[in-house]
Amino acid sequence: MSSSRLGMERSTGAVSTPGALPYYVAFSQLLGLTMVAMTGAWLGLYRGGIAWDSTLQFNVHPLCMVIGLIFLQGDALLVYRVFRNEAKRTTKVLHGLLHVFAFIIALVGLVAVFDYHKKKDYADLYSLHSWCGILVFVLYFVQWIVGFSFFLFPGASFSLRSRYRPQHIFFGATIFLLSVGTALLGLKEALLFKLGAKYNTFEPEGVLANMLGLLLVCFSVVVLYILTRAEWKRPSQAEEQALSMDFKTLTEGDSPSSQ
Amino acid sequence: MSSSRLGMERSTGAVSTPGALPYYVAFSQLLGLTMVAMTGAWLGLYRGGIAWDSTLQFNVHPLCMVIGLIFLQGDALLVYRVFRNEAKRTTKVLHGLLHVFAFIIALVGLVAVFDYHKKKDYADLYSLHSWCGILVFVLYFVQWIVGFSFFLFPGASFSLRSRYRPQHIFFGATIFLLSVGTALLGLKEALLFKLGAKYNTFEPEGVLANMLGLLLVCFSVVVLYILTRAEWKRPSQAEEQALSMDFKTLTEGDSPSSQ
Repeated sequence: MSSSRLGMERSTGAVSTPGALPYYVAFSQLLGLTMVAMTGAWLGLYRGGIAWDSTLQFNVHPLCMVIGLIFLQGDALLVYRVFRNEAKRTTKVLHGLLHVFAFIIALVGLVAVFDYHKKKDYADLYSLHSWCGILVFVLYFVQWIVGFSFFLFPGASFSLRSRYRPQHIFFGATIFLLSVGTALLGLKEALLFKLGAKYNTFEPEGVLANMLGLLLVCFSVVVLYILTRAEWKRPSQAEEQALSMDFKTLTEGDSPSSQ
Repeated sequence: MSSSRLGMERSTGAVSTPGALPYYVAFSQLLGLTMVAMTGAWLGLYRGGIAWDSTLQFNVHPLCMVIGLIFLQGDALLVYRVFRNEAKRTTKVLHGLLHVFAFIIALVGLVAVFDYHKKKDYADLYSLHSWCGILVFVLYFVQWIVGFSFFLFPGASFSLRSRYRPQHIFFGATIFLLSVGTALLGLKEALLFKLGAKYNTFEPEGVLANMLGLLLVCFSVVVLYILTRAEWKRPSQAEEQALSMDFKTLTEGDSPSSQ
């Protein structure tokens, strides 16, 4: 029984460099870079550019969030697909590091907006965008800490990791999608505050920002597609396969559900 | 090999009524009904209620969209988890029917807003909310037609269905999430148009609408969690298992990838 199962996994392992994957990854990066460039173009053309010590400080916020919480966070999720044949440990460290960079950049974006509100004496945390944003931030931090303790810190057992892994993946994807949703709300807020009733006259800024919004949606859909396509999942390495084999045999052997 | 594989699937089939699933489904329905009730409360308390032949016609739009494109669409996705032990054909028909109801209700909501704009001489389709909304509508319609032709119309072969199924599931979940994102944008738009600068004074309407937004997010996260949890997926029925067995044996036998 164990040998036939090994045979099955080997046949799954045979599709280990799916032909279309690199094209989808390249497409996601093209969308991601265009999205960052378009955010810069929007802020540069219609919002006076970026600075820390003036009213332009607000503009640091959208740029940092798009780079950190959308582009880098998305890429951190893709690491296990892109480096699917590298050692698992290296891939894990890269995944963790990309999330650290994303978090730091997002933190700068967060400080920028709170600092700007303080200087202008604006109220904080009243809008749906801000509520979702704080939720994303807290969840992202908790997910990183819990992920680190389970997967990078050496203590956790194999069975504990196996049980936590699906939760980590689900919440990772959820936090990413929530980040995109929050960005769309922020974009809409920025447009309506400035354009107001002029929004419905197809002002160039409104059209550009709408296109940026659609681009954020497209990037997240492509990232999610790459992540969820079953044949593109990372093949288990030989040593992990052996471990997983033993674990399965062990649990199935004395499981009450196998009857 | 074939008998051991059958054994494996049987052991997966043994977890066919996971203990926690009904609680999660009940929780999703509680969230869903609260979300619909809160939309009604928002429109009733702060927007003058609902009617077809006055300025209140606009209010038909958010209510129909929350009921159709969020609550019913979400429930249509859950049908395969809730009725996991019923005949597949019955479940399919129910899935298709729920989507038809969702689509018709959403269509009423769409007509309401276009008709309202026409009466008021407002511009159409200028906002990010409207662009996303039209995208959702077109995708939803195409997904239904394609889904119907592959899965309910008797023509499509087993192998064609197997290849299309993962795409149908991915795009179904994507359209659902895009609907939720679009609703959040619409909610924000409705708030900013009416409250404007008063939004930052924590007006009761603003707080209620923010909570409604978070509720939409929570409903979609719970639906997605139920959908994606691997052990909660629908077990294959005996006759489908047999078919799938034959199909696997057939393709693996002469597949060039098995080497």
